[in-house]
Parts: sequence; C-alpha cells; structure tokens
Amino acid sequence: MMIYGDSNSGNCLKVKWVSDYLLLPYDWIEVDTMKGGSRTPEFLKLNGAGQVPVAILDDGRPLAQSNAIIRYLARDSDLIPQSPYLAAKMDEWLFWEQYSHEPFIAVCRFQMVYLKKSLGDLDPDKVKRGYSALALMEHQLHNTQFLVCSTMTLADVALLAYTRVAHEGGFHLDGYASVRRWIAACEKTLGL
Amino acid sequence: MMIYGDSNSGNCLKVKWVSDYLLLPYDWIEVDTMKGGSRTPEFLKLNGAGQVPVAILDDGRPLAQSNAIIRYLARDSDLIPQSPYLAAKMDEWLFWEQYSHEPFIAVCRFQMVYLKKSLGDLDPDKVKRGYSALALMEHQLHNTQFLVCSTMTLADVALLAYTRVAHEGGFHLDGYASVRRWIAACEKTLGL
Repeated sequence: MMIYGDSNSGNCLKVKWVSDYLLLPYDWIEVDTMKGGSRTPEFLKLNGAGQVPVAILDDGRPLAQSNAIIRYLARDSDLIPQSPYLAAKMDEWLFWEQYSHEPFIAVCRFQMVYLKKSLGDLDPDKVKRGYSALALMEHQLHNTQFLVCSTMTLADVALLAYTRVAHEGGFHLDGYASVRRWIAACEKTLGL
Repeated sequence: MMIYGDSNSGNCLKVKWVSDYLLLPYDWIEVDTMKGGSRTPEFLKLNGAGQVPVAILDDGRPLAQSNAIIRYLARDSDLIPQSPYLAAKMDEWLFWEQYSHEPFIAVCRFQMVYLKKSLGDLDPDKVKRGYSALALMEHQLHNTQFLVCSTMTLADVALLAYTRVAHEGGFHLDGYASVRRWIAACEKTLGL
C-alpha cells in the first residue's frame, strides 16, 4: 500500500497510526499541501476532491477520506467493535468528528500554525463550537474509558488526531480532565 | 424504532427513505429544530450533540448522525456493497458528503429557505465550494450509473438528500446533466 499524506495533517496521521497499529506495511509519500501538492493534475487523478490522505491499495485502486480509509484498513480487527450497535456508535463519532470537531478545532489550529493568525484573529463562532465539541467528549469520557467502550476503537483514533494538538489552535484543555486522561491512554495504546 | 426528525431536513429524510426502502417499521416523531426542539433537556439526553436525526432502537438505545444511522439500518442489505473495497468507496462518499457537500449546499439552502436570505447575501466561498461538489459528482456520474457502482447504495441516498433540493439554495443544475439523470434514477428507485 502507498499512503499519500501530509505529515502535518491529523487526517493523514490517522491512516499512519492505524497502519502501524495493525502492522500493515506501506510506503509513505509526502504531499506538501501548503505548496499545492494535492492540487496537481497527477494527484487529482488519485482523488478528484484534491484532499489528502489517499491510500493506493496493492492492486492500484485508490481510496480517499481518512475515516473511510481507516474503516477499510481496520475491518475485521479489534479497532471496530463486533457488536453492530457499538460499531454504529463508532460511526456516529466518526461522522461527528468530520462535521462538528475537525471544522473548528483543526481549522483554528491550521489558521494559527500555518497561516500565522493570532488567537484574537480566530472566528469566535469556530472557537465556541470547538469548545462545545470538547465538552461533548469530556461528558462521554467521564463515563467511559474510551469513546465507545472500554477499549480503543477507530472513534478514538479519529478524535485523537486533532484533540491532542488542540492547544496549537488556542484551545485550553485545563477544564477537560477526562479528555486529557483519554489522550494519554490513546497515545500509550498507539505507541506515540 | 422511533425516528426523531425534522421533515425539512435532508439529513432526517435519509433515515426515512432507507427505512421505507427496507420496509423497516418506525414511528416518526417530528422535531421542530427552528423552534429549538433539538435543544431541550429531554432531547439532549437522546443526543448530547443536539442534532437531528436520532433513531431510538426497539431496545431503547439511541443512535445519532444520519450516515451512521443509515449504515446501521442497511447492514446486510443491498444498499451496502458486499465487496469491502466498494463498501469503502461508499464510505468515502458518505464522509465527503458531510464535509464537502452538506456544509455548502445544505447550508445555502437553509439560509435562503429558512433564514430568508437572498442569493446575493450568500457567502461566495460557500457557493463556490457547493458548485465544486456538484462538479465532482457530475464527473463520477458521467462514468457510472450511481456513485459507487451500477446499483444504488447509501452513498446515493445520502447525496440525494440535499442535491435534489440544491436549487432551493440557488444552485443551478443546468450544466450537470449526469447529476439530473441520477437524481431521477434515485427518486424512482426510492419511490419518491
């Protein structure tokens, strides 16, 4: 397998972490998205959406969207609950991550780290919704060890990607003790 | 099963359509999100994210996120390809829908239909990205009958929800012949 990814992107790191955890061999092809690497004609043939990551399977077929890729790679592994309901709860977190977490926490981080914006320049609505996302995670992780059950699933891998670097986007985790406990547990499980 | 949904929301209609197609019995509980129906203390117990739809399974367990719900309801049905790769391509579209289609096309429609904004008041970036989403669908549907293969999958159900009403958000489908052909085919298959 080949993974086209940007090492600075949490979405890309999800694919790396799952592959490493499952001992799946891969070649990492670094794509510099800040220099338009995901918008070249060659790249757009792999993913017309112009986004990293993209996995090229051993038979040459491409697969995009971080959460779709890790769901494929981890099929039949302990990263996806066997119970259909718990697998669906995992999916609930995966879709929530892309709609209600990444667009606020990852985007604020992107603007501060890569566009060099200051905290005061961030969109207050994005900051507010980022904290709402952290509050929902804190509520869940106060009650369960990981997001879905007592063991790590893809929901944890996906949410870890940008939560562990939320401070780079100006988010303080001081009031989120369960989230901080969970970050450490995920990092330990993944060997980060 | 009980489905808490707002009949004006494409995300909610996805769940209704899949249930109807699979002949799954349900009670529909109308939630008026414009009047705060998804933010009451009772509703937040079902889904802390405060979003519709929510499905309450027959054993009382709740499930949120439209695409997670339909993926659960349609497990083992012909709406999910048996091939792991094609199922993953379906997931690719499902995640893409929530990140790169719904936030632009559904949001523009929401602002025009419910907030009574005019076309000129829409965020030009949202309009541009909405048309980019339609262009990607057109490219795919020029080559395949449905988004993933020759038969309808959950990817089509999910993308249909807001694409069929894109004109209500000011999007013209005149230049998207394959998308229009596909909308008609999906509606026929779903009996809409």
